[in-house]
Order: sequence, then structure tokens, then C-alpha cells
Amino acid sequence: MSVPSETLLEALRWRYATKAFDAGRSIPDDLWQTLEDTLVLTPSSYGLQPWRFLVIRDAALKAELRPHSWNQSQITDASHLVVLLSRRHIEGRDLDRLIEATASSRGLDPTTLAGYRQMMAKDLVDGPRSATIERWASNQVYIALGNLMTAAALLGIDTCPIEGFSPPDYDRLLGLDDSDYRSCVVCACGYRSSEDRYSGLAKVRYDRSELIEQR
Amino acid sequence: MSVPSETLLEALRWRYATKAFDAGRSIPDDLWQTLEDTLVLTPSSYGLQPWRFLVIRDAALKAELRPHSWNQSQITDASHLVVLLSRRHIEGRDLDRLIEATASSRGLDPTTLAGYRQMMAKDLVDGPRSATIERWASNQVYIALGNLMTAAALLGIDTCPIEGFSPPDYDRLLGLDDSDYRSCVVCACGYRSSEDRYSGLAKVRYDRSELIEQR
Repeated sequence: MSVPSETLLEALRWRYATKAFDAGRSIPDDLWQTLEDTLVLTPSSYGLQPWRFLVIRDAALKAELRPHSWNQSQITDASHLVVLLSRRHIEGRDLDRLIEATASSRGLDPTTLAGYRQMMAKDLVDGPRSATIERWASNQVYIALGNLMTAAALLGIDTCPIEGFSPPDYDRLLGLDDSDYRSCVVCACGYRSSEDRYSGLAKVRYDRSELIEQR
Repeated sequence: MSVPSETLLEALRWRYATKAFDAGRSIPDDLWQTLEDTLVLTPSSYGLQPWRFLVIRDAALKAELRPHSWNQSQITDASHLVVLLSRRHIEGRDLDRLIEATASSRGLDPTTLAGYRQMMAKDLVDGPRSATIERWASNQVYIALGNLMTAAALLGIDTCPIEGFSPPDYDRLLGLDDSDYRSCVVCACGYRSSEDRYSGLAKVRYDRSELIEQR
């Protein structure tokens, strides 16, 4: 079932933050479905999935977003633009939703999960983490981003993670101002242009000895 | 080069937050090296790599950490315990370090990268993101966490991400109080115990239609 180490590392070395996408090339539907499945399968703290993912293919909407994204061409040229949204707050109803889904998936009586609900509530709703819940939720979304970029590389799909955008403008243009979610981070997905000079540059990583310490 | 969709999805469906590890089973050195390479290859904003990774194998240190980790058995039973550290602040010297590494990797004169340095400084050191730089750095670390969990699953290695620990106690026990890094999140890596009842439970994910919206 597992893949050889070299296959994994080759994919991770092949990937880079694509600056110029081939605007004429779309990700085939079946591969895109796999990436959506990947997003859905992303792990999260307690399994709470405090996120939503907007998949933007509409050219007019991409063009509207581009000036609010440091005018980066990836916004309009990438095949699929994903805006990863994080939940603004975590309340009792979020816990109830997960408890119901868990009971349903596993054929359990929801009341048997009361301890699990209480543990989450003490941590996220009533506990110290409630004061920084936006940060907690955005951390979870970045797990999804990491998972998405690695999965895409393994499938031969290019990505460019984008923090250089205006979340308030995105929220307004995407109609999120009155919703439970906010724009957290963006990931453009598609295929590199043969003319992207960045694709040929050496990857820059600090030495393993600077980054990893054995204890 | 790329892997079939089904291989990827099978690995992501196989993985789960392992609650009981087989304490007698170690990850072979060559596979562990691959996971360290995976961590080093993790993408980050601007390529700044605002992280370090402590790999803990020492049984005595694991035992010291466990009571500060909600007493979870994964801390002591997993083959390799990774503490992912995030940088506390981003300063000019962090930018210089990246500029030097970039110039060195790509055979460039560092002065040709002045615009790149200025862009980072305006955003992270002098700009609005400087006020929330710990959050920014922790977001990057969660990319590494997502990448690590997905890579491990593809290699047939089990993981358990752990937010249930006391960062101040970890920082103290790991000697980080006066360092540039703080304990951000933990990931236990190893092999599931055949007796972990969680391994057989159905995965709980909201419907794709609740999580993904096409625009």
C-alpha cells in the first residue's frame, strides 16, 4: 500500500511555489475530485474540521480577486483557485454537530459521547484556548494547506500558497462578512508554465543539522 | 513520477490519530530519514522556514514530558516524538539568513536579492503582520505538521498530532525559554498497537457538500 521513499521525496523536490501557471491547462475532473477528497480527509484537532473550502473557477470572480491579491497572476491563471476558510468561533453548536456526525458514522447513541463533548468544551469553548480560537482555527486550516500541497505534488499538480491577499476584501467579495467563516489562506492549483523561470531555480532549505535536533 | 489517486486516498483513509502505539516497534532508520527529509522540504511563506524540529527518542525525556501532555500514552510509547517549534519573532537577521542561503544555493550575489528582502521586511518585520508574528509562525509550523502526517501515512507510518500539552512546561524541560523558538505542536510517530480500538472506528468527516463550495 505504501509508496517508496524516493517517490515521495521526488514529488516534494519537484514542487515549488509556482509563480507562472499555464492559463490554458486545466486540472482534469477526476484528479480534482481526488484533491477535494484530500481536503475532506484532512486531520484536525478533535476532528472538528473548523473550515470550508471555496473552489473558484469563474474567470470574472478571479479577476475581481486579483487586485486584492497583490495583483499576482496565479489568481487568474491557475486552473483552480482554492480559498481556505477558517471558522470564526467555536460554540456549543459546533460540538453538537461533530457529536451528531460521530454518532451517526459509528452507529452510536450520542449520549455515550458526552465525555468527549465535555472535553472539547472545557478546552475550546470555556477553556483558555477560547481566547485565541481564531488562531487555533487558522492553525487547523494550515494542516489542510500542507496536506493539499503535498497531495497535489504527488499527483503531479502544481500549487502556489498565497498569504499575500487582503482577507477583508476577500470576505466582502465572497460574501463571508456575515458568515461563520473568514478567508484564511489561498492556494492556487494548476500546471506550471514552461516559461516560469522559478521552476528551474535550486530549492532553498536550511541544512538538516540547523533544522532538526535529536534528543 | 506521480502516484495513482487511489494510492493517495487509501493512505489518507488508513491514517487516523493513533491513540495506542506499539511501544515495542521502532521506525527503521531509513524511513525515519525520509520523514526528516520531508520536514526539511516543507514549504513556508517566503521560504523563511520559521521552525525547528526536536526528535525525541530518549525514554527518560519522554517520561518527563508525559505528565505535561495530559498523561497521554502516545508520548512515551511512540517510536519517535517530534516537537515542532515555531520561531518567536522575525527580525532583520532572519531575513539576512534566508538571503544568504538563497544566494548561496543559486550562485547569486546577495545584493541582487535586495528587493526580495525589502518585500519580506515590509510585510513581516515592519508591516502589519509583525504584530501577529507568533501566529504567522505557528501557521507555517502547521503546514509542516500537515505535510508530515500525509507523508507518514504514505510510508505506512502512524502518527498522532497532539495539541494537548503544556507549552510552558515543554519549553522549560526542553531548554527553550531563552531560545528563539517555542514549542508549538507535537506529533507522535510510530506504529499502531493491534489493540488500539480507535483504529477500527469509522472516520468522521462532514459531507463534501458541507465543506466544499464551487464558485
